Amino acid sequence: MKKKISVIGLGYIGLPTAALLSQNKSFIVHGSDISRSRLDQLKQLKSSLFEKNLNTLINECISKKRLILERKITKSDFFIICVPTPFYLKNKKNKADLSSVNNAVSNILKVLKKGNTIILESTVPVGTSKKIYEKILKYGFKKNDINFAYCPERVLPGNILNELINNDRVVGGINDKSKFLVSNFYKKFVKSNVYACDAATAEMSKLAENSYRDVNLAFANELSIICDSQKISASELIMLANKHPRVNILKPGCGVGGHCIPVDPYFLIEKNPKISNLISVSRKVNNSKTKWVEKKIIHYIKDFELKNHKTPIIAYLGLGYKANSGDLRESPALKIAKKLNNKYKVLFVDPYVEHIKKFKFVDLDYALKKAKIFFILVNHNHFKKKFYLNALIEKNAINFD
Amino acid sequence: MKKKISVIGLGYIGLPTAALLSQNKSFIVHGSDISRSRLDQLKQLKSSLFEKNLNTLINECISKKRLILERKITKSDFFIICVPTPFYLKNKKNKADLSSVNNAVSNILKVLKKGNTIILESTVPVGTSKKIYEKILKYGFKKNDINFAYCPERVLPGNILNELINNDRVVGGINDKSKFLVSNFYKKFVKSNVYACDAATAEMSKLAENSYRDVNLAFANELSIICDSQKISASELIMLANKHPRVNILKPGCGVGGHCIPVDPYFLIEKNPKISNLISVSRKVNNSKTKWVEKKIIHYIKDFELKNHKTPIIAYLGLGYKANSGDLRESPALKIAKKLNNKYKVLFVDPYVEHIKKFKFVDLDYALKKAKIFFILVNHNHFKKKFYLNALIEKNAINFD
Repeated sequence: MKKKISVIGLGYIGLPTAALLSQNKSFIVHGSDISRSRLDQLKQLKSSLFEKNLNTLINECISKKRLILERKITKSDFFIICVPTPFYLKNKKNKADLSSVNNAVSNILKVLKKGNTIILESTVPVGTSKKIYEKILKYGFKKNDINFAYCPERVLPGNILNELINNDRVVGGINDKSKFLVSNFYKKFVKSNVYACDAATAEMSKLAENSYRDVNLAFANELSIICDSQKISASELIMLANKHPRVNILKPGCGVGGHCIPVDPYFLIEKNPKISNLISVSRKVNNSKTKWVEKKIIHYIKDFELKNHKTPIIAYLGLGYKANSGDLRESPALKIAKKLNNKYKVLFVDPYVEHIKKFKFVDLDYALKKAKIFFILVNHNHFKKKFYLNALIEKNAINFD
Repeated sequence: MKKKISVIGLGYIGLPTAALLSQNKSFIVHGSDISRSRLDQLKQLKSSLFEKNLNTLINECISKKRLILERKITKSDFFIICVPTPFYLKNKKNKADLSSVNNAVSNILKVLKKGNTIILESTVPVGTSKKIYEKILKYGFKKNDINFAYCPERVLPGNILNELINNDRVVGGINDKSKFLVSNFYKKFVKSNVYACDAATAEMSKLAENSYRDVNLAFANELSIICDSQKISASELIMLANKHPRVNILKPGCGVGGHCIPVDPYFLIEKNPKISNLISVSRKVNNSKTKWVEKKIIHYIKDFELKNHKTPIIAYLGLGYKANSGDLRESPALKIAKKLNNKYKVLFVDPYVEHIKKFKFVDLDYALKKAKIFFILVNHNHFKKKFYLNALIEKNAINFD
């Protein structure tokens, strides 16, 4: 008999996961989302992930009704929770916002039956799975009635579909039955290894992975500032240092963006404030890199004004949080761009971004004619095409990526 | 015609480098060291590196007079400086001690001739090569009379000979002629790639490489403390997190030891105190890990005393700064061992260390019979042999490595 699966939250992870599951003929897949406009957008086949192949797959699943979209959560054998869990840094709250997870669980409880399985994929503080499971048990279920596992995703935006299938998965089961059952579930569509452990270890794994990335990006960013102060080319230095057999320094940039790496470390810091010194400082270093770039840019502009006795037209190249993507979530380039857009005449060049309020977008050819100073904030491949690369070198474009 | 080469400083790097060069028939190799006792020891074929194959090679070179040992520096075509450059943290001096380098340069100047080449391999702050070259020019040499390059080593103790030959090298030439000439020199015995750059970039490369290692060890050490506080197995967690395609968390331990990684970051911090936040905190985290282990050990002992109403005999396993080595330089295990040796009855087990004043060394079989609590500070393969592993598990040995 076909298993019915509900994917709750149709965002960056839920949507591709639902699409992937719907390819499997032993599953009937429902996708639910709290947002009506999101559902309408999807039903009109306007999936807007920054991945072409994935959008095609998703639209195909929806149009062929292999993936059934609805607002309410329906009775299912498996519930997979992929809702966002933002982290509030403002007003000194410093707390993970688990309201979407709690909301999803409450709605699942309305249709939950003995023998059902709940899988949580959203990033959460260590201990969350245990709390949720205890809440479920309070609703009249006995131990082993409901299976529960925490299974973090670890995909790279831009390569989601491939990584969903080919990356190893960690299954943090709340008990042995859950470990076994949920591992087998993932093995149906994951080609690589599935590792079972307890829920807290799986929760910690996700946070440790992204904290590791953040710390290493902070090292690259700090090193780039040190190199600048000692008049050493950071890119040459990193290329040479990485010839060491046990060294792999990442590429520095304008800071750290996206929805995971600059956010997830706070989930660790929140629970371990006194013993997360390095992880805390890494966050600060990465944030300060953005401010350092801002200052550098202002310095270059003032320098131009002093030499030329006029205010230059500025061109900003690249706005997303990473190269070859228009994904603007937590983008440090966007932060920098917004700050200076009011003060100077700025032209924005980004083939991946169509519109931002109050931003004047132009193509690179136009910018090359009009602008006097060029700042590459995100170095899309578009800017590295031979003709543009040479033109930008000739214009002494300053590359922060 | 054969080229005469002087290697100055016959320690961990100078000695294997001299031995390696002496294998090449186009070189006549002299090795000099300021220490009479060091030279006597070597002449008696008592090389004491912690690498068996290398000691054999070195003794062969010396006994066959392919490597000529002497105290004074002799006239040569190439001078390779491999002297120690310690860093003083005590008395708030916080300064690299370049006296051995300066002493070596002064002695080279006594025999230096136009056309000679000086290569500096010791770790130094960025800018040191330029200063030394300027000093040389003051001795009546013109530009291009003397070639000078900074060429950091990047070998792993325990695998030095292999890595001297097979690791890529960075050659930081003070001018183009030096870059070309010294690159060609290294290409005569290095099998992998030789990259030329300017001297400051090469100096920075060495410091960046070891700071990268220190930061990553600090992350592993901090994570292990967080895991402990949340009752998660750090080793399982790291194994699982490392299944992520872009994550490679190192192994935590009692701290960070050896002569390079816990020292070199200070060379960067010294010159860039305000912008080396992450690198500074990493040093602190790694040092505090050693103190954390000390506290944990005392906690275990007190716990034993409370439960058993007597003071236990303690066994410490492993004392070197890394597994399968008796190298005690900057060893955190040794620091921990020294602190508690006075307070408790301690048995020390380390097949690689023969004698330390006031330490009672025993073999593992004896310790297993006598001791009540076992702390693995450095997990040598010896302790992982099936019989010992099982015995240590049975004794609830606490493993910090």
